[in-house]
Amino acid sequence: MKSMSYYVIGVDMGATNIVCVLSSKDGEIITRDTSKTLGSEGKEKTISQIINSAKNVLKEGEKLGVSAKSILGMGIGGPGPINSDDGIIYIAPNIPGWINTSLAEELGNELELPVFLENDANAAALGEWWLGAGKGVNNLVLLTLGTGIGGGIIINGEILYGAGHVAGEIGHMVIKEGGLLCSCGNHGCLEAYTSAKSVVNRTLAEIKEGRKTLLTDIVDNRMEKITCKLVFDTAKKGDGLCKKIVEDTAKYLGTGIINIVNIINPQMVILGGGMAKAGDFFFDPIKEYVKEHAFNESTKGVKIVPAALGSNAGAIGAVAFVLKKKGLLNKADCFDSNIIELSET
Amino acid sequence: MKSMSYYVIGVDMGATNIVCVLSSKDGEIITRDTSKTLGSEGKEKTISQIINSAKNVLKEGEKLGVSAKSILGMGIGGPGPINSDDGIIYIAPNIPGWINTSLAEELGNELELPVFLENDANAAALGEWWLGAGKGVNNLVLLTLGTGIGGGIIINGEILYGAGHVAGEIGHMVIKEGGLLCSCGNHGCLEAYTSAKSVVNRTLAEIKEGRKTLLTDIVDNRMEKITCKLVFDTAKKGDGLCKKIVEDTAKYLGTGIINIVNIINPQMVILGGGMAKAGDFFFDPIKEYVKEHAFNESTKGVKIVPAALGSNAGAIGAVAFVLKKKGLLNKADCFDSNIIELSET
Repeated sequence: MKSMSYYVIGVDMGATNIVCVLSSKDGEIITRDTSKTLGSEGKEKTISQIINSAKNVLKEGEKLGVSAKSILGMGIGGPGPINSDDGIIYIAPNIPGWINTSLAEELGNELELPVFLENDANAAALGEWWLGAGKGVNNLVLLTLGTGIGGGIIINGEILYGAGHVAGEIGHMVIKEGGLLCSCGNHGCLEAYTSAKSVVNRTLAEIKEGRKTLLTDIVDNRMEKITCKLVFDTAKKGDGLCKKIVEDTAKYLGTGIINIVNIINPQMVILGGGMAKAGDFFFDPIKEYVKEHAFNESTKGVKIVPAALGSNAGAIGAVAFVLKKKGLLNKADCFDSNIIELSET
Repeated sequence: MKSMSYYVIGVDMGATNIVCVLSSKDGEIITRDTSKTLGSEGKEKTISQIINSAKNVLKEGEKLGVSAKSILGMGIGGPGPINSDDGIIYIAPNIPGWINTSLAEELGNELELPVFLENDANAAALGEWWLGAGKGVNNLVLLTLGTGIGGGIIINGEILYGAGHVAGEIGHMVIKEGGLLCSCGNHGCLEAYTSAKSVVNRTLAEIKEGRKTLLTDIVDNRMEKITCKLVFDTAKKGDGLCKKIVEDTAKYLGTGIINIVNIINPQMVILGGGMAKAGDFFFDPIKEYVKEHAFNESTKGVKIVPAALGSNAGAIGAVAFVLKKKGLLNKADCFDSNIIELSET
């Protein structure tokens, strides 16, 4: 018996880009539409961008034989905090006027489709769990290393929401009580040590203290040109200060991972975002730090891997979220996790 | 229609005491048997103590009209790490020769009852969830403040086990990277700052540095007489150093609680163990610290409360574990959690 073909629209509503995919029920991307997020033009503009993107993939899909009737719904990964039960984005920091917006309802009315809303980090975690680095791993944690540090936690194949739908704020875990000031106002948060911004800030602080580095020549003493990527690239060239900054970042991130593992005991920690593209050069010291400072067998055994879905993770995760909401995707659909070799980090 | 009466034996196999209760299906304690744990006399001695205790409550129960036929099974909370699926205690640090013991099977054969084994902190969390401070709260975390720091996590009315059955090692969360040495070998763990032992160690370190305190007179300069309880009692008398130590302990514990809340987002954090008996004197600064350093609404709203079941928590939790294993106790059986006022900490 052949199962019915159906399709889902998945949207990643990011601060920089809106990524919209039309996906088969198996996660095959039929067509894709992306645009720069024009957040500064306000809420209505962003909403109309999402609607246009959805209409584009629907039109393109129709040309490829995907009928409107076979579209199950639309999922959106958006900036948190979000209550995925009621489809409201409470606040979108980069979009003026975005307060308590019933996005799911508005889009649903316009597109005449069921629309489901999820926090972007949760959506990305779901995407990696379904078809990415965590395929078949039902207990995993995703960390997105960007301007800030996001987190999504999957337990027994389900997103961990917590009592108030705000679980997974991993970036604001304190790893150094009394340490560096974080954007949240607290001191010593993981984000204050491991975000792209903090990598740059820690580098600048060392330069200010007179530490020599190739960086100053590379940016021709225009310090505002120093980026996280540049620090990593210069570390790869062997620059002493940049190497130290990368090693410190690995140590801090390793500390956060140890905490996650001691508390939640997942099988896998997936690192996404720009910094996670640095490869073994960055992953090796993280793994080594976790191994050396681990408390128990579980910490020693956890896999630490880069995300696999790249810029599609959020949109694919939004598709997975719709399938889950419709009861079409559960733990059992995924490959069993016994492949994980606990002896290997 | 009157539902059938049945009963469960619950055992807390602690390092100091063995507490054994015969309980009704509603958690009413019919009879109770306790004895000092003779761990130093080896594994077989401890097992025979548990058997004797169980036989005592069965005999006493029979006198009170509880027939052997109405006993559903026995639950045991024991020292971790434990795999509750296979009923093995891998290692009991205070009992010589205790390696990979199939305790559930051994006891089951002897008592001719189904026996279920659970980690002691998980059992205590389950007890507090069922009938204690967390009654009706389906998302909670229990921290036991003793010689070490134990943890049990309940999510949606179920224990969080994690992939390798070792979730909830909250005491080994790092709150101060590069900080005090912990018994686990790592630096800066919550346990290294907030266990009873660490309270004493931090006090001794300050005295060694020349800090004046009433303590030295109270113990007549015999520093080995300083206990955690004495530090707390002397703080209540207004001693400057002891007050500082208690305040620092509240700050460190508050940091750990902030991390738990940011990652897991429970409705309630329950503090058990000796230190938690200090009352508002200790709880007020913890709540204040969490409130002041909180990241989000969720952290601000979490209830921080003392455990309610005292020395029965583990045994009652072991009873709850048996009822859960038999499918007789689930989330819906508990009172709804909407009573929690999120504005109040």
